[in-house]
Amino acid sequence: MNYFDDFKLGEIFQLNEYKVSEAEIVEFASKYDPQSYHIDPVAAAQSPFGSLIASGWHTAAIFMRMQCDSFLSQSHCVGSPGVDQLRWITPVRPGDRLHGENEIIQLRQSKSKPDRGIVQSAVSIYNQDNELVMSLETTAFFLKQPIKQAR
Amino acid sequence: MNYFDDFKLGEIFQLNEYKVSEAEIVEFASKYDPQSYHIDPVAAAQSPFGSLIASGWHTAAIFMRMQCDSFLSQSHCVGSPGVDQLRWITPVRPGDRLHGENEIIQLRQSKSKPDRGIVQSAVSIYNQDNELVMSLETTAFFLKQPIKQAR
Repeated sequence: MNYFDDFKLGEIFQLNEYKVSEAEIVEFASKYDPQSYHIDPVAAAQSPFGSLIASGWHTAAIFMRMQCDSFLSQSHCVGSPGVDQLRWITPVRPGDRLHGENEIIQLRQSKSKPDRGIVQSAVSIYNQDNELVMSLETTAFFLKQPIKQAR
Repeated sequence: MNYFDDFKLGEIFQLNEYKVSEAEIVEFASKYDPQSYHIDPVAAAQSPFGSLIASGWHTAAIFMRMQCDSFLSQSHCVGSPGVDQLRWITPVRPGDRLHGENEIIQLRQSKSKPDRGIVQSAVSIYNQDNELVMSLETTAFFLKQPIKQAR
């Protein structure tokens, strides 16, 4: 399990392949983004997109899963204050296979909480044709050492 | 159904209540953000958060649903290039009831696509105690008139 001090500036974590099915696109969007071109293949064919596309928030959620599988689940991450410059560049369509990279672009000590450090990453997600699908900058808190239980 | 020209600068759309259950928090995070404090109430109790909290991406997805229900599903929205300054401020916990506001802060014609305009919004999401849970700035494209089918 990685602590803050285990991360290195410029380190790149590969985000491994995630295949996006039509069923998953429709299921996510039916709950969270029920615009017609996310849930109805017939309406989507008539839309400017020409076929069903995933909700951008679905692509973001898939990135989160890819990040967990790559390194976050093996790290003492304790949340995120937010993300910046989230850009949806190429629509994600049924059958797409996504992959990506997560580069560590800044490491700094938290001023308010001495037990943790702050890690900034630049993330790029690509499809199977290596078209850039989504990019964003993430910020996350990581513990510097194990939590001391007060009991 | 609203077109671009129907939006007004400074207009505020209310985002109506969305109740977040423990089952939904665990279901979303099990798929997309399986960190222990999102999926395991026992581990979450030992974490810095003290109890189960929703994935920030889940809160973002819930905002999207609230926005669809408020005005987007009644509008000719044709996608988004991205969002800025997404901030997760207060954790969302099981049983929380979220509400919010979506203020139109900029309206402009698309330079590259004459058939659409660009709407920027400042969004604030609150919990039942009126604590600010999440804020972000969104950008979305809206058609100026019905799509002409080329057939």
